Amino acid sequence: MITQEMNDRLTRVGPGTSMGNLLRRYWHPVGATGEFDKEPVQPVRLLGEDLVLFRNERGQFGLIGPRCAHRAISLAYGIPQPNGLRCAYHGWTYDTDGHVVDMPFEPACLPLKIPSYPVQELGGLIFAYLGPEPAPLLPRYDLFVREDLDRSMEITPLPTSWLNCMDNSLDPIHFEHLHGVFGNYVHKKLGRPAAMNPARHLKIDFDVFEYGIVKRRLVEGDPEDCDDWTIGHPILFPNILSVGDVKRPNYQIRVPTDDTHTLHIRYQGVLREPGKEPRSDVPVRRMQVFDEQGNILEPAVNIPEQDMLAWVAQGPISDRTIEHLVTSDRGVALYHNLLLQEIEKVERGEDPMAVVRDKAKNYPMIELPRERVGYQQFWKVGGITREPARPAGRG
Amino acid sequence: MITQEMNDRLTRVGPGTSMGNLLRRYWHPVGATGEFDKEPVQPVRLLGEDLVLFRNERGQFGLIGPRCAHRAISLAYGIPQPNGLRCAYHGWTYDTDGHVVDMPFEPACLPLKIPSYPVQELGGLIFAYLGPEPAPLLPRYDLFVREDLDRSMEITPLPTSWLNCMDNSLDPIHFEHLHGVFGNYVHKKLGRPAAMNPARHLKIDFDVFEYGIVKRRLVEGDPEDCDDWTIGHPILFPNILSVGDVKRPNYQIRVPTDDTHTLHIRYQGVLREPGKEPRSDVPVRRMQVFDEQGNILEPAVNIPEQDMLAWVAQGPISDRTIEHLVTSDRGVALYHNLLLQEIEKVERGEDPMAVVRDKAKNYPMIELPRERVGYQQFWKVGGITREPARPAGRG
Amino acid sequence: MITQEMNDRLTRVGPGTSMGNLLRRYWHPVGATGEFDKEPVQPVRLLGEDLVLFRNERGQFGLIGPRCAHRAISLAYGIPQPNGLRCAYHGWTYDTDGHVVDMPFEPACLPLKIPSYPVQELGGLIFAYLGPEPAPLLPRYDLFVREDLDRSMEITPLPTSWLNCMDNSLDPIHFEHLHGVFGNYVHKKLGRPAAMNPARHLKIDFDVFEYGIVKRRLVEGDPEDCDDWTIGHPILFPNILSVGDVKRPNYQIRVPTDDTHTLHIRYQGVLREPGKEPRSDVPVRRMQVFDEQGNILEPAVNIPEQDMLAWVAQGPISDRTIEHLVTSDRGVALYHNLLLQEIEKVERGEDPMAVVRDKAKNYPMIELPRERVGYQQFWKVGGITREPARPAGRG
Repeated sequence: MITQEMNDRLTRVGPGTSMGNLLRRYWHPVGATGEFDKEPVQPVRLLGEDLVLFRNERGQFGLIGPRCAHRAISLAYGIPQPNGLRCAYHGWTYDTDGHVVDMPFEPACLPLKIPSYPVQELGGLIFAYLGPEPAPLLPRYDLFVREDLDRSMEITPLPTSWLNCMDNSLDPIHFEHLHGVFGNYVHKKLGRPAAMNPARHLKIDFDVFEYGIVKRRLVEGDPEDCDDWTIGHPILFPNILSVGDVKRPNYQIRVPTDDTHTLHIRYQGVLREPGKEPRSDVPVRRMQVFDEQGNILEPAVNIPEQDMLAWVAQGPISDRTIEHLVTSDRGVALYHNLLLQEIEKVERGEDPMAVVRDKAKNYPMIELPRERVGYQQFWKVGGITREPARPAGRG
Repeated sequence: MITQEMNDRLTRVGPGTSMGNLLRRYWHPVGATGEFDKEPVQPVRLLGEDLVLFRNERGQFGLIGPRCAHRAISLAYGIPQPNGLRCAYHGWTYDTDGHVVDMPFEPACLPLKIPSYPVQELGGLIFAYLGPEPAPLLPRYDLFVREDLDRSMEITPLPTSWLNCMDNSLDPIHFEHLHGVFGNYVHKKLGRPAAMNPARHLKIDFDVFEYGIVKRRLVEGDPEDCDDWTIGHPILFPNILSVGDVKRPNYQIRVPTDDTHTLHIRYQGVLREPGKEPRSDVPVRRMQVFDEQGNILEPAVNIPEQDMLAWVAQGPISDRTIEHLVTSDRGVALYHNLLLQEIEKVERGEDPMAVVRDKAKNYPMIELPRERVGYQQFWKVGGITREPARPAGRG
Repeated sequence: MITQEMNDRLTRVGPGTSMGNLLRRYWHPVGATGEFDKEPVQPVRLLGEDLVLFRNERGQFGLIGPRCAHRAISLAYGIPQPNGLRCAYHGWTYDTDGHVVDMPFEPACLPLKIPSYPVQELGGLIFAYLGPEPAPLLPRYDLFVREDLDRSMEITPLPTSWLNCMDNSLDPIHFEHLHGVFGNYVHKKLGRPAAMNPARHLKIDFDVFEYGIVKRRLVEGDPEDCDDWTIGHPILFPNILSVGDVKRPNYQIRVPTDDTHTLHIRYQGVLREPGKEPRSDVPVRRMQVFDEQGNILEPAVNIPEQDMLAWVAQGPISDRTIEHLVTSDRGVALYHNLLLQEIEKVERGEDPMAVVRDKAKNYPMIELPRERVGYQQFWKVGGITREPARPAGRG
């Protein structure tokens, strides 16, 4: 139970807020490369700011303010040019830095500029940096870079706070209850057999490391030397869950759209079978799981949908003035304290944790701890080990 | 024409308002028993309060606050247990009084409690009481209890104030104009013959009795000893119209969802034919007649839809600062004065009218005056007595 | 770039605003005669005021306040009578001046009146005047009156300010860029060939005349004596564009619904072929091009849709505090200054421009300058002169 003031400090992400300032020290994905052949100009919203992301005809990406400096029309209708984005209304053209480079009919091109932010591509995603210069390096986290994986992603807009999502990742216990008991209840209501064994948690633990927090669990039936307990999996500070096993590792990136909306990117790697051709693209699937009022459109039959259900069912921003954190919430408390501590670092002018400026650490990649196998007990249903229910259409 | 302040006093139903305090002295239906096999957990909203109504696996109903005390997730996703409702997220379980009775993983179950209100079942409805203890008796009004009737109900959410609905019931004259003249106009626009004779009202009268107000009318063509004039039909204080004749009596219950929304329950009894088996259930039909903006979805061809149209067409709360009550509104004025008088009783610490605490009066039932036949002149169209147009799907 | 205060002064149209006072000195279309057979009672919104437009059974139009003086129900459900509009609820009847003329059941008809405004029919439109008496003449602009034309109209509600629309009409340059370059880009994305030659503007000019502003352009390829440059076409003050050529002249009337909504009426004349029977009606097509959030429903393939796209893409009210007017915006600046000047005239108690009180000028009609042919260069695509893409369903 915290004050409303503290809840605001932890959740508000707009320009000038404490958390907004912290989150602006990191690169955030705002688009998927694979979608720009079909639509090279896309309106985006990040940290409460409306922007336009475009790819010019030379293949360079730009992220600029949403309105033309001339008559304030939305640049989301702009036309890609070799040298930038041309406004639909009168042809004023913006380069990737937001400078007007063409002003048809006018005797001279006035030296105008609209806001712009740096972007970089990695692993099929376009990342943006909205913070103060000099920008840090874009972290080369392993799944974005590894050559032995094929990649794909699912992108889901959620009408809920990014922190509702993140709290869930610091909370191992929910797996037993939300995915085990509740998931089985959803299947039962659909006339289907139980999908999961809700293995009882015996203990949980957390370690802070260079790039975030590793969480670990031991459940009934597993030995003390199982990967879930000895290795665990990391939450990359500030807003990425790294999960899955060596064969199917994935990231869940919770991009803060604004205070009450999150763009959820489930970034999936699949270990390529030996001798198989690597796939050259990173396919993208856009999902719609909730309406704007937070009603789920279909029953939540798999783990990602159940997680999203729990986040959205906490409301646009969870009311932490009425909650009661208990011993199972140690990870949540640790994470909140880390957020507050890193906010203070930023306020002192320091880099917060997991900001990467050392090329030696970033190349060829940042390798992360990962279970070889995980969650084994949960899939032993009625004595038989089942396949996890996966979202439809996932590889 | 009244002041805005007085209109607020008459219409606002939230916690702490004058009318909210009065309405909290009565039991209000919040669910239909027949729907709990399919969905045993239902979010409800009553008098401006969001709540969750559930049936545990022992068949007991509970009405509790909407959010888990742990992480504030909606309990509308809860799972019924023998001993209560289990939160989807981490399994905290609430009994029907709102006490946490299970807190998995925690070393001990903390003595937490969320809000809860008493509920009772009667006649296929679940009633809730949101007022101060001791709760009065749930009135056993005849249609809920009689053994010679089969029952059914239609439930319609309306984007309008409960008082818009109630005013209509204290106003006999509208029948001639809204159902007669306007109803015929609706049919004419659809290319259909007139459905009703708009019999002219000669006089109207009202009597206050123990449970509310009886209204009476005499229309052209009817003798002075007709039931419409000598018996009439009652408005049960504060928010139920009892209407229909001995063969097809019904209640129209206007449950105040909040200031600007009403849950309309049309509770229909049909006199069972001699020797016929009683039906064991009370079937429920959920209707959608308006969108949230108050647009009617289909032409208003029958009496209930025409009434609803008039209420909704007054806006979310009728602007009584611009109205002109006239002699035909005697019943409306009487009803408003009664509401204000009963508000004052509550403020003095007294029970308001129609609060039942005497078991002798309540058992076996509270019998209400009812016309043997009614509205006869209205169905004489072109010299022939027609059947009233009924809502589709009504028995 | 202007201040927010100035932008408000130029755009706000509600009762008591500066611009609202100016716009109330003109007649505005609020309905189309051809639609009243099907629906003789229509809710309308004009200059921020909700009203009801009806045709009584004698064929007379009335424009009255939206709510019955009795119980404040919407009169949009009223029933036309020979002597006025009868309220659906209790039959109170209003004449075209808003007087109650019937009050069934009451011992006497009380002398009540609701707001009303004068209306007049012309050319298949019903015009309303919301300003101070004495009302000026309804201007008989030529397309409403000429006997050598057949008429039709398209009516499109737009979620944007009337001034966004009007600015566009004072801005010749956009034609080359919005309809030429952007239009071709829209067609290209649909796999279609370019629809237009984006002829380069060489010069533009503007002249104030008795009824507004004439705008003129010279584009590359056209001689100095072309109609586009020597004649041009007028913007009728304050809110009508007159465009097209002698064969297919049209008006685009931007009726200010409220600050952020406009009813766009594209009023089309087609020169009748010699010997052909005149058509007796003025057909009406209701269009839906955008949703309420301003998203366009289909790609903008023709000129009217592209214009609408530009207006709506400026937002509900264009943010003129961030714009940069340049030399190509001379017409826009001229128009804004004219608006401000005419506001001041009204504030001094004078008639603003284009208010017509002289019958001699108004009869038989007010003839407007019009190009014999226009826009020729734009339709020379690949050396071939094409037909302009027209909205589907236009004659």
